[in-house]
Amino acid sequence: MSRYSRIVLASRPAGAPTPDNFRLEEAELPQPQDGQIAAHTLWLSLDPYMRGRMDAAASYADPVGIGDTMEGGAVGVVTDSKSDRFAAGDIVVGRIGWASHGILNADEVRKVDPDIAPISTALGILGMPGHTAWVGLNDILQAKSGETIVVSAATGAVGSLVGQLAKRKGMRVIGVAGGAEKCAYAVENLGYDLCLDHRAPDLPGRLATATPDGVDCYYENVGGATLEAVLPQMNTFGRMAICGMIAWYSGQGIEDAMRLPKMWRAILVKRLRVQGFIIFDHNDRFKPFVEEVAPLVANGTIHYRESVIEGLKNAPAAFLDLLKGGNFGKQLVKVSDT
Amino acid sequence: MSRYSRIVLASRPAGAPTPDNFRLEEAELPQPQDGQIAAHTLWLSLDPYMRGRMDAAASYADPVGIGDTMEGGAVGVVTDSKSDRFAAGDIVVGRIGWASHGILNADEVRKVDPDIAPISTALGILGMPGHTAWVGLNDILQAKSGETIVVSAATGAVGSLVGQLAKRKGMRVIGVAGGAEKCAYAVENLGYDLCLDHRAPDLPGRLATATPDGVDCYYENVGGATLEAVLPQMNTFGRMAICGMIAWYSGQGIEDAMRLPKMWRAILVKRLRVQGFIIFDHNDRFKPFVEEVAPLVANGTIHYRESVIEGLKNAPAAFLDLLKGGNFGKQLVKVSDT
Repeated sequence: MSRYSRIVLASRPAGAPTPDNFRLEEAELPQPQDGQIAAHTLWLSLDPYMRGRMDAAASYADPVGIGDTMEGGAVGVVTDSKSDRFAAGDIVVGRIGWASHGILNADEVRKVDPDIAPISTALGILGMPGHTAWVGLNDILQAKSGETIVVSAATGAVGSLVGQLAKRKGMRVIGVAGGAEKCAYAVENLGYDLCLDHRAPDLPGRLATATPDGVDCYYENVGGATLEAVLPQMNTFGRMAICGMIAWYSGQGIEDAMRLPKMWRAILVKRLRVQGFIIFDHNDRFKPFVEEVAPLVANGTIHYRESVIEGLKNAPAAFLDLLKGGNFGKQLVKVSDT
Repeated sequence: MSRYSRIVLASRPAGAPTPDNFRLEEAELPQPQDGQIAAHTLWLSLDPYMRGRMDAAASYADPVGIGDTMEGGAVGVVTDSKSDRFAAGDIVVGRIGWASHGILNADEVRKVDPDIAPISTALGILGMPGHTAWVGLNDILQAKSGETIVVSAATGAVGSLVGQLAKRKGMRVIGVAGGAEKCAYAVENLGYDLCLDHRAPDLPGRLATATPDGVDCYYENVGGATLEAVLPQMNTFGRMAICGMIAWYSGQGIEDAMRLPKMWRAILVKRLRVQGFIIFDHNDRFKPFVEEVAPLVANGTIHYRESVIEGLKNAPAAFLDLLKGGNFGKQLVKVSDT
């Protein structure tokens, strides 16, 4: 047995999480059993969905227990293998959690090819967020050439790929992001036709001006004021793919949100389709996603941006910042160099 | 030119409509032009969607203008034809409106075969409401054998067919209706497994008990308290077809309705699909609907119930009653015997 570091859920947040909800501690790492591997973490992914795991409320996955390691995807190096599918030294991606080391079931782990792109991309543009972007755009929204799409959290790990893929489809692509710097990046680097700063005044008016032919597809990552601005612009037979709702994850703003009948009436009158999705239901679509997108990342056609913080102990602060939109691109924690 | 009677929209309602919003008057009937027919009305249909036409707000169809004839479908007899598709004496269904006579474009009129079923069914079980039931169940909900469906307004013109078709599919079928008499009829005559009275206490508790395996499909006609009771019961990958929301048409209860984030979270976490539809987008599905359902109506397998009021002048009172759930089955006005 060896010692390893991990961050556990110390307490459940009441509203917005604080550093006190997390605790860094050491623990004993067990040996891998048959069919398992041991790995040490190089990169930890931080993602908005983790906020949901901190609450006790029923969701699509069980909550993290008090005192349990915070869940999360990570890229690591295999240090010991009791599976014939992996050998020591392999680079893998799996659900190690917020920890320096972990024991994983081999059938829940995927090998990472470092020759395609930097291995950190297995947590971002070529991993779960990229897969989410691709499935939401193609399978849920069924987006088509010539249509207008609005992408909220336009420069985030998911949104940044949605926007680029939508542009490649021949859509009119409008982003919404927080701050002038992100908006400039969306237009200049990601190819958005326009990107609107949701922190500037009169988002509804600016969005209406930006979508003279209305909105056919809305890629929903945020809820809140962005959704309120998009709704009146939705066209007949429009689609909304609900991927996340970060503005409402910690309960803020819920009491100011619209009442349901306004949405219900819009769905009826405009014959909208509103659909939620969770990426782990779509594992069968990982292969076509990666076959399309990996070459475009490898040859530099598709852009991505990472926001890196060093050291596992800094993960909570980086995560709290992410929930406030403080990251710029895919948020990663560099846990170890080798 | 000849005189005819019609009911016009006298004023727009503020909240629930009143008799003062309508006015019975006489007018001159013009001659039909080429491609048109003249008809006199036998049966007028009253439907909840008509409430929407009374408001000035933008909807899927233009509002009825102040002083214009209230819109509506009707069965009539052709009295004069300038179309080679129809002859005097033909029974037709078309949008005559709340009027004793009308001029219709022949290409917007359908012939009714009185040998299949009573001609009034062309406004109900074999007309727009039946078509709506069939499309909502098959195309929008994509309902499957073995699933559980909840049907609101379970004994109404639409719901009564949804329930019967769902039962024929091999679904567990739970109705929600107003009052013990309607609920008894739903179970005894329409074949619902259970029907819950939304006027009795604790609808959420009774609905939860009635759906131990949750709800896969919700056929939404009402909104309001029924929707609130259904939402917690929705299963993962559940579908909601929004066909109507009569509880909210006149603005009552909107300020007590849930806030949107509660619904948004349910759609995301449970991966729901919520879709609105309007039947006139689905004309290509009328033929398969009628081919399936007409023989079942003709041989008595599918049941329907009509609520008939005599005389065009009584249409407003019957319509106001319909909005409060006072009808029992398809609401018709018998305008003329021959």
